[in-house]
Amino acid sequence: MLNTLIVGASGYAGVELATYLNRHPHMNITALAVSAQSPDAGKLLSDLHPQLKGIVDLPLQPLSDAAEWADKVDVVFLATAHEVSHDLAPEFLKAGCVVFDLSGAFRVNDDAFYTQYYGFTHQHGDWLDKAVYGLAEWQHEKIKEAQLVAVPGCYPTASQLALKPLVEAGLLNEAQWPVINATSGVSGAGRKASVTTSFCEVSLQPYGIFNHRHHPEIVAHLGTPVIFTPHLGNFPRGILATITCRLKPGVSEQDVAEAFHNAYHDKPLVRLYKKGVPALKGVVGLPFCDIGFAVQGEHLIVVAAEDNLLKGASSQAVQCLNIRFGFPETLSLI
Amino acid sequence: MLNTLIVGASGYAGVELATYLNRHPHMNITALAVSAQSPDAGKLLSDLHPQLKGIVDLPLQPLSDAAEWADKVDVVFLATAHEVSHDLAPEFLKAGCVVFDLSGAFRVNDDAFYTQYYGFTHQHGDWLDKAVYGLAEWQHEKIKEAQLVAVPGCYPTASQLALKPLVEAGLLNEAQWPVINATSGVSGAGRKASVTTSFCEVSLQPYGIFNHRHHPEIVAHLGTPVIFTPHLGNFPRGILATITCRLKPGVSEQDVAEAFHNAYHDKPLVRLYKKGVPALKGVVGLPFCDIGFAVQGEHLIVVAAEDNLLKGASSQAVQCLNIRFGFPETLSLI
Amino acid sequence: MLNTLIVGASGYAGVELATYLNRHPHMNITALAVSAQSPDAGKLLSDLHPQLKGIVDLPLQPLSDAAEWADKVDVVFLATAHEVSHDLAPEFLKAGCVVFDLSGAFRVNDDAFYTQYYGFTHQHGDWLDKAVYGLAEWQHEKIKEAQLVAVPGCYPTASQLALKPLVEAGLLNEAQWPVINATSGVSGAGRKASVTTSFCEVSLQPYGIFNHRHHPEIVAHLGTPVIFTPHLGNFPRGILATITCRLKPGVSEQDVAEAFHNAYHDKPLVRLYKKGVPALKGVVGLPFCDIGFAVQGEHLIVVAAEDNLLKGASSQAVQCLNIRFGFPETLSLI
Amino acid sequence: MLNTLIVGASGYAGVELATYLNRHPHMNITALAVSAQSPDAGKLLSDLHPQLKGIVDLPLQPLSDAAEWADKVDVVFLATAHEVSHDLAPEFLKAGCVVFDLSGAFRVNDDAFYTQYYGFTHQHGDWLDKAVYGLAEWQHEKIKEAQLVAVPGCYPTASQLALKPLVEAGLLNEAQWPVINATSGVSGAGRKASVTTSFCEVSLQPYGIFNHRHHPEIVAHLGTPVIFTPHLGNFPRGILATITCRLKPGVSEQDVAEAFHNAYHDKPLVRLYKKGVPALKGVVGLPFCDIGFAVQGEHLIVVAAEDNLLKGASSQAVQCLNIRFGFPETLSLI
Repeated sequence: MLNTLIVGASGYAGVELATYLNRHPHMNITALAVSAQSPDAGKLLSDLHPQLKGIVDLPLQPLSDAAEWADKVDVVFLATAHEVSHDLAPEFLKAGCVVFDLSGAFRVNDDAFYTQYYGFTHQHGDWLDKAVYGLAEWQHEKIKEAQLVAVPGCYPTASQLALKPLVEAGLLNEAQWPVINATSGVSGAGRKASVTTSFCEVSLQPYGIFNHRHHPEIVAHLGTPVIFTPHLGNFPRGILATITCRLKPGVSEQDVAEAFHNAYHDKPLVRLYKKGVPALKGVVGLPFCDIGFAVQGEHLIVVAAEDNLLKGASSQAVQCLNIRFGFPETLSLI
Repeated sequence: MLNTLIVGASGYAGVELATYLNRHPHMNITALAVSAQSPDAGKLLSDLHPQLKGIVDLPLQPLSDAAEWADKVDVVFLATAHEVSHDLAPEFLKAGCVVFDLSGAFRVNDDAFYTQYYGFTHQHGDWLDKAVYGLAEWQHEKIKEAQLVAVPGCYPTASQLALKPLVEAGLLNEAQWPVINATSGVSGAGRKASVTTSFCEVSLQPYGIFNHRHHPEIVAHLGTPVIFTPHLGNFPRGILATITCRLKPGVSEQDVAEAFHNAYHDKPLVRLYKKGVPALKGVVGLPFCDIGFAVQGEHLIVVAAEDNLLKGASSQAVQCLNIRFGFPETLSLI
Repeated sequence: MLNTLIVGASGYAGVELATYLNRHPHMNITALAVSAQSPDAGKLLSDLHPQLKGIVDLPLQPLSDAAEWADKVDVVFLATAHEVSHDLAPEFLKAGCVVFDLSGAFRVNDDAFYTQYYGFTHQHGDWLDKAVYGLAEWQHEKIKEAQLVAVPGCYPTASQLALKPLVEAGLLNEAQWPVINATSGVSGAGRKASVTTSFCEVSLQPYGIFNHRHHPEIVAHLGTPVIFTPHLGNFPRGILATITCRLKPGVSEQDVAEAFHNAYHDKPLVRLYKKGVPALKGVVGLPFCDIGFAVQGEHLIVVAAEDNLLKGASSQAVQCLNIRFGFPETLSLI
Repeated sequence: MLNTLIVGASGYAGVELATYLNRHPHMNITALAVSAQSPDAGKLLSDLHPQLKGIVDLPLQPLSDAAEWADKVDVVFLATAHEVSHDLAPEFLKAGCVVFDLSGAFRVNDDAFYTQYYGFTHQHGDWLDKAVYGLAEWQHEKIKEAQLVAVPGCYPTASQLALKPLVEAGLLNEAQWPVINATSGVSGAGRKASVTTSFCEVSLQPYGIFNHRHHPEIVAHLGTPVIFTPHLGNFPRGILATITCRLKPGVSEQDVAEAFHNAYHDKPLVRLYKKGVPALKGVVGLPFCDIGFAVQGEHLIVVAAEDNLLKGASSQAVQCLNIRFGFPETLSLI
């Protein structure tokens, strides 16, 4: 039994972590924590999220001193703001905890990335060097050895799972950048009140055109330039990414199918569509990324769907935990 | 041409007022105003509400001195918080403006109502005495003479339009209070950011059970006790009220039909259903209150539907304006 | 291991049954079946419902001869139309299968109920006599002995779980009937295409006023008259029932709380709210019925929420299965 | 006053036509018609669409003999299925009526288009030759002379309004096809019941990849190849198109802005965004197409939003009517 602490447990990703870890046979939730300033401190998680009533009724404890907790737990999940993760992770790491960070604080080993896209100067280059990017299907061997796993962003997970098999197999025409159009549910913006995410204001719209911080994350780990246009959709959960690519001359539909098969035939949490493409409803509430595609001449459309809070955040974090500790990869997830 | 000022123009009711008054042939929008502290001050209304781009592109002016505007306009619409209306209305009234107040500040002539339900002590008993409650179909003669019209709340409009014909005709069994179950769209909570009205948090639920401030407003003007249970619905606009009553022994379905016919056959903005009952979709975006009913034995179900922002707020305010100044009652509304 | 057949597996309740039974440690899904005429026959369940891809990929077999299957299975779930259940259930029963019927075909032991509300003449009075009404929290002992369990309707489950403790404790003033206003998600109407349930047509509206067939079901099993007004809501799943009652003089809030506590303190799938009332979001996707209430004078509002497809159908069926075979009551459900 | 007949008045586009034409000062609705086989024949339009109660209460007459009506009206709107328009339009045209056809039956002057994408052989090549494609902002002079206007499809309207200024100004790099990702509300599929458009089945998903019939319509009238991927969105109305283009080397953001300005500065129903891009909510219920864009290096993202039933169908039809008869272009539309 591993003892675990979930920091930022009151947010949408935190709730999903608590749900998974509560039913995980090898994990014991030692505590749920929120920042000491949070108005949620002291409440029960199930008061904020009534679906957990009778399932996870633990209190949200104010986290004032990380060191105090670091000695009591083996594993820490950080579902916190980027700067908070940046500050907290080293506290737990130096005490020997294994840390799964769901923020962007350790995803890209490049100082400029943090100043330009996250607005802070990274102070922990040593941990940046050691952090393993937790794109589970592609980083299996590294995750097994990691002390710090930087769980990928929601858009980068869907985008990379869709494109990486093609890039690795050398199928794409490099003269033309893949065009990623992706739409995310509102929960991607977190639980903080804002006019933008208020019920009457939400409608389908692009945002962050040419400057969303998931763009450099995708490019850094995919190793190829892309055009990425995120959209806000009028649904609570899920991401659907429609990706338009140019194939190299002579690449066939069969070549594409093989690239996907080779990449994912033995990966339980990526579901390949033999015909057709996924819809959002197939993945909401589930830990999968579904992928389908269509080819016409040199043009390829790949469609990837996932639950932004699960495969795009919490279930991938638990998947990384399972890999790290040698548990079955889907344990507690399906 | 009457000059008019809309205060609180950036909120959902304000937007609807601006839309109606912009196309009203006898009205000139002199200015749109918001409180001087509002972060919206200085912006164009159409920047906040893009549907108005090219239609109403006026700026939102900070209202620091009511007197300054009072001399320039004939008519003032207050789509402001209750306390703000309470303070502002007299400023405009004493300058001779006709004021249509969409808040609760002048709806009930009872000091205790304000302290108990609105949390402030009313300072303008003189204006409370003179204020006319703007339930348009029932207050026609008084509205024609009014300088201050207190436009009814959204729930009270639907509830009273449904019940008043029955109460006035003496059809209800007084031993059993009418049970009003009503569900409102999220816009009823206004445009301010809050977790409660954020996209991912909204789901059908009752609130304000036994203590919503529209309850005493209904009772005061209907003249009979009721049980009123409001609900938040997962839609942006509209109110549907399902009202269960006990009829006096011997009262027939025909008696009920006649009571409604007598009350509304010449009222253009109440639509009676000859068979069946209304659905929300029939009224969203429209200035009507739709009413239908069914009788079984002594039991009567009345269903009333309206757009909470229109017949429940802005269109009723303009309807009152039309009555007050002798314009056709539906001018600019349909 | 018990072998089981799910008939009507392609509908919304069938999908949920398949999901629960697939993960149930003592159940083996022998086959999924649909009517021989169904256009879905021969497809994979996961082709129709992509969320099940990789989880339940069984084919939907055309059911032409019940007897053929009856010999191969121990337990049958009928998620079929009322007439179909009426015809099929005896076929399986006489072969010794235990049958859980989710339709209305065996819920009320009264011939007139079927002719008036379901439009057919019941031919199996013997099985009607033996059928046990599967309101799980109240029928525990009878379910343990049953061969045929008639799983309650969705509205009746929420309505009776809310009212039965009060009726049994004798707290309600019988001069005034409880008023049940309930709103159901669109899935309650099933998966068949119709204009009424098409995306652009759905909006909040009452239906079946004074003549919905769940009304006599409630009355028959509750043993007291009620007024029941169902509504269609603009959400896929869930039922919220707001019930207004008159208490007997002298009954206190504490008396009500005790009645609920006594009824449900040891029932794992009813969650009582100590303060406040439930919202729909707390129960969607979960097998609970959540109940809260408020009292003012002699007036009582009880609010009950459940997922119409789960506690209102499939999870209650599995709960009955667990009770019937002595498994832990929540096995595979939470 | 022109007499007009609306055929297919019971569908979503028909309802909007009836609403606009009912308030048009120069139009008299002689009749609303549906096919003689329609179950809606004989009903009031307002029985099917309660929002029109008291506004347009005309009956839906069964259209058995087009010739009978052709003599009584000056103008005909066909909001009918493609084959029906194909058969009916010539009947009205030869009687001298001016016809606005909202179907695809006369949009592309190419026989193969109809056999391949619409499944029928076009029989009226003479009328195909004479038909004017009603993309209102670009076909003004031709529409003025037209007897038959083929109103563009919903996706083609948004796509072409976004791309045509760039193509005409020669700004796009022809080596790379524009990528159009567009999402439409469910009303685009019409009012016919189907599982695909039922409330519980709709979720964001691509469809018609590489083979949607709006693709050749766009290509034919734009005069340049594109990649077009339509999506179904979980909202009733509206289209948002996000279009990714490659600019020719040296083309600047200013060049793009000028191209749009030149094309639309005097067009009242296209609204250009000076900064930012449109959201769906800005256009729903309105007759505009809103366009915004962003440039980074040689990459250009153009976003266009419209109401699929209005600028994508009915309001554009009325806009064409206004142009054809010399009325102000926005008459009855805003």
